Amino acid sequence: MASDIVTRELKQPINLVEYLYRRLHEVGVRSVHGVPGDYNLQALDYLPKCGLSWVGNCNELNAGYAADGYARVKGISAMITTFGVGELSAINAMAGAYSEYVPIIHIVGQPHTASQRDGMLLHHTLGNGDYHVFADMGAKVSCAIARLNDPVDAPTLIDNAIRECWIQSRPVYITLPTDMVLKKVEGQRLETPIDLNRKPNDPEKEEYVVSLVSRLLHEAKDPIILVDACAIRHRVLEEVHDLVQQSGLPTFVAPMGKGAVNEAHPNYGGVYAGDGSNDGVRERVEESDLILSIGAIKSDFNTAGFTYRIGQLKTIDFHSNLVKVRYSEYPNINMKGVLRKVIERLGEVKVGKIPHISNKVPNHEADADSQTITHAWLWPNVGQWLRENDIFITETGTANFGAWETRFPKGVVAINQILWGSIGYSVGACHGAALAAEELEENQRTILFVGDGSFQLTAQEVSTMLRKNLKPIIFVICNDGYTIERYIHGWDASYNDIQPWRFVDIPSTFGGQQGQYETHQIRTRKELLDLFSNEHFSSNECLQVSLIIH
Amino acid sequence: MASDIVTRELKQPINLVEYLYRRLHEVGVRSVHGVPGDYNLQALDYLPKCGLSWVGNCNELNAGYAADGYARVKGISAMITTFGVGELSAINAMAGAYSEYVPIIHIVGQPHTASQRDGMLLHHTLGNGDYHVFADMGAKVSCAIARLNDPVDAPTLIDNAIRECWIQSRPVYITLPTDMVLKKVEGQRLETPIDLNRKPNDPEKEEYVVSLVSRLLHEAKDPIILVDACAIRHRVLEEVHDLVQQSGLPTFVAPMGKGAVNEAHPNYGGVYAGDGSNDGVRERVEESDLILSIGAIKSDFNTAGFTYRIGQLKTIDFHSNLVKVRYSEYPNINMKGVLRKVIERLGEVKVGKIPHISNKVPNHEADADSQTITHAWLWPNVGQWLRENDIFITETGTANFGAWETRFPKGVVAINQILWGSIGYSVGACHGAALAAEELEENQRTILFVGDGSFQLTAQEVSTMLRKNLKPIIFVICNDGYTIERYIHGWDASYNDIQPWRFVDIPSTFGGQQGQYETHQIRTRKELLDLFSNEHFSSNECLQVSLIIH
Repeated sequence: MASDIVTRELKQPINLVEYLYRRLHEVGVRSVHGVPGDYNLQALDYLPKCGLSWVGNCNELNAGYAADGYARVKGISAMITTFGVGELSAINAMAGAYSEYVPIIHIVGQPHTASQRDGMLLHHTLGNGDYHVFADMGAKVSCAIARLNDPVDAPTLIDNAIRECWIQSRPVYITLPTDMVLKKVEGQRLETPIDLNRKPNDPEKEEYVVSLVSRLLHEAKDPIILVDACAIRHRVLEEVHDLVQQSGLPTFVAPMGKGAVNEAHPNYGGVYAGDGSNDGVRERVEESDLILSIGAIKSDFNTAGFTYRIGQLKTIDFHSNLVKVRYSEYPNINMKGVLRKVIERLGEVKVGKIPHISNKVPNHEADADSQTITHAWLWPNVGQWLRENDIFITETGTANFGAWETRFPKGVVAINQILWGSIGYSVGACHGAALAAEELEENQRTILFVGDGSFQLTAQEVSTMLRKNLKPIIFVICNDGYTIERYIHGWDASYNDIQPWRFVDIPSTFGGQQGQYETHQIRTRKELLDLFSNEHFSSNECLQVSLIIH
Repeated sequence: MASDIVTRELKQPINLVEYLYRRLHEVGVRSVHGVPGDYNLQALDYLPKCGLSWVGNCNELNAGYAADGYARVKGISAMITTFGVGELSAINAMAGAYSEYVPIIHIVGQPHTASQRDGMLLHHTLGNGDYHVFADMGAKVSCAIARLNDPVDAPTLIDNAIRECWIQSRPVYITLPTDMVLKKVEGQRLETPIDLNRKPNDPEKEEYVVSLVSRLLHEAKDPIILVDACAIRHRVLEEVHDLVQQSGLPTFVAPMGKGAVNEAHPNYGGVYAGDGSNDGVRERVEESDLILSIGAIKSDFNTAGFTYRIGQLKTIDFHSNLVKVRYSEYPNINMKGVLRKVIERLGEVKVGKIPHISNKVPNHEADADSQTITHAWLWPNVGQWLRENDIFITETGTANFGAWETRFPKGVVAINQILWGSIGYSVGACHGAALAAEELEENQRTILFVGDGSFQLTAQEVSTMLRKNLKPIIFVICNDGYTIERYIHGWDASYNDIQPWRFVDIPSTFGGQQGQYETHQIRTRKELLDLFSNEHFSSNECLQVSLIIH
């Protein structure tokens, strides 16, 4: 009743689903990931009308991974699944996005609100009349949840969810019951874009923190900059770039911060990860007397097993909602405003020496007669082959750790899951990233390194890449199983073995047409170097699947 | 400390993980599904020692589906995943098993208890120190949860969880932190098997209900029996069989009850599903004056959209923990004891006419000159081709609905997900069912009908079937997309399209060796009938993939 009254008063009535889609479009979404299901079919009809394309992934987990990869390239993404079966299949991907600060708008098609209210025994339910159970699970890996059960408050809930998704850089969960899809809402709201800006810092407090940081920075004898994942995810790369550029300070990245700074810049000093650091970097970072630590996530893999040795007394931590100077904490203050002011007042700072990091193959590997492709040989060569603005995706496992040994050209976007670490992620993410890159029309290459074991989890997403005529360059490292797990436990254990696939047939089996893809089988160093120097291969001309066979 | 004291007092110390595995073995588990991960690797070492084989599925969702299929054949199953990433990937399968009453023991490898207590920032976490969040999700789709954080109470928790799993016929969730794996527990407990029997009914109450049921049964002019899923899942098939046999009453099944009764028996009258019933069945069931309804799950798809027209006044409902006579409810009473006593006192009952259900192709289809394989033509022919004790798996979608149109030979086990309805389920379930059948050594065939759209979600599990050298007979109905969804909405919508795969290459791409598999492409009725009559094809000689191309 209430909604009928309101409908009559609407100035610019618009279908709820269109309102939602226009907001997605407004924040930059152009493709929507997901799998059709009977509780979302009607909603899918309205995508084209709002300038959105439907992806249609092979399954929901892959869709979630793809949405994650898309968001890491384009800033935000959207996915539509169906109640219960669909959303739960995707929940691992949502948890990964929550863990790693990736903004995905997850829309879940639900049964009619009346069926929910009456607790009807519908398919895709647990059979117990509980229509909240899946949303309760989803809420645990979302930074906001919007239940669109009433057209009156639906636009507010949508706008709020999208805002939180952007600002907190984490997934949000939006329910869309079938009977809400075509309910009328006020379209006039769309004339005002959603405010995606954070609330500015309290000026007095910000000023206090900026003064403190500036003073310590000028007093320091050997300050350095250490950049990590949250600098990317909370969108302060411009501030980081200006700080690096204007200060001239030695600049390091944590593994999850790869791609946050221009590694071609002369200030770049390499990857710091405690015991897992690039040669000479550990000593250099740990001897500094002031570390400007921007967006740190000090997880086990990101710190090579908690082997950081940086005292808090010589650290300033910058976060999205906290600045911490030594042990003094300044909560509810965002690093963006602070960093900008620190840069503005930078003046002269003392600049120490910077380690030289190159993509040179280590001597003991370069001199070897062997044609065996070892990790120590592979990654510096990959580093040499990378180009500006490449999207460089590495699977959790040996590929991820290997990527630390490369020095990127300018503008490389690194995609990985060092914290969440779900194997199989990279194949879905590669699809989403390649799709996003195509939309950006900057001819960026999308490059994936994945092991054969991980590839098997999500292999069918290559089918969606072919369907969308995307052209990523995929390397499958064929080492007969879960090699990273062999390093951890069970080197010869059969549980780390996998079924040997004919990987070379993957693109044709998944419906690739002649000319749409190429495959290569690489057994020697020479073969790989030949491939790298082949301009046709190295351009975005078709989908490439190269097997690196050990 | 406490546990050290206890260790010294143990009479037969045994590693906790071995205790757990010996209990799995005791209840009939021989293969354990799952994917290795660093928090479960050490536990996997101990499987062979306890007479258990590791499956090693391609991903966790497939592992969960396989465990579901295995449990439906062998009575119970087990799966091991890793913390966060692994368990969440499987949670849709767990929810399906919860919804459809399938007992799966889900063991989750967790980080060290000290890391959990300290809230360390480990990989596979949300980065917020919350080590309960995934178990809380798992608990929502489990009937019991056992957190093995202390060796003292671990055996009790394990025994209790396995007992609840069996009795409630639903998944249970067991956490196994890495430091608990080799903790010593009391092995002497293993001399006493876990009690898997339900508590007997209160004798006076049971007697009261039995008298009431018996009286109504004898007063009825035209009683019938209607059997549904919970008769299978709560293990009263022997009672159902004896009741059908001794009473001679017309016996019907709901769609989810397919396989619960011997459909070759002359009493068998067909599938009752309201508007979706077999020809003549609806009228026959609805004119009865007393319906003995055993194990009903009145969900939308199981009742063809709630089109049952059976009054409660002429119904007796038998459930695992409730008997309901007309509107009188008798909670906390199990149907097993009641049915047995009703059978013992059966005497003479009035037996009405029984519809004749055959696997005859309908006249309008049989006379047609067409070679097009329609659903109306296909399913009766499948029914003719089925053999005793076949395991017959149908995917949610057209295959599921088609199966209603077959009359099974004796002993057929039907596997489907009519309530949960997660597409892709059937491929994983097929693997688990085929593995279970092999362990039973009764030369049962495992037969799968799946659509091309659903197949794509979980296709890689064919790889695991090949790895285990299993020999299911798989039919892929190639109708270019999600056909069941076209019927619901969007007949021509592109979101119901899929990428056209070269399905015929699936077994070789997934590593099948010559002689291990065969593929067929079926375009006409004659080709399919020839295949059905080919004894080599119809036996368990190799894995078969047949594409039925529309």
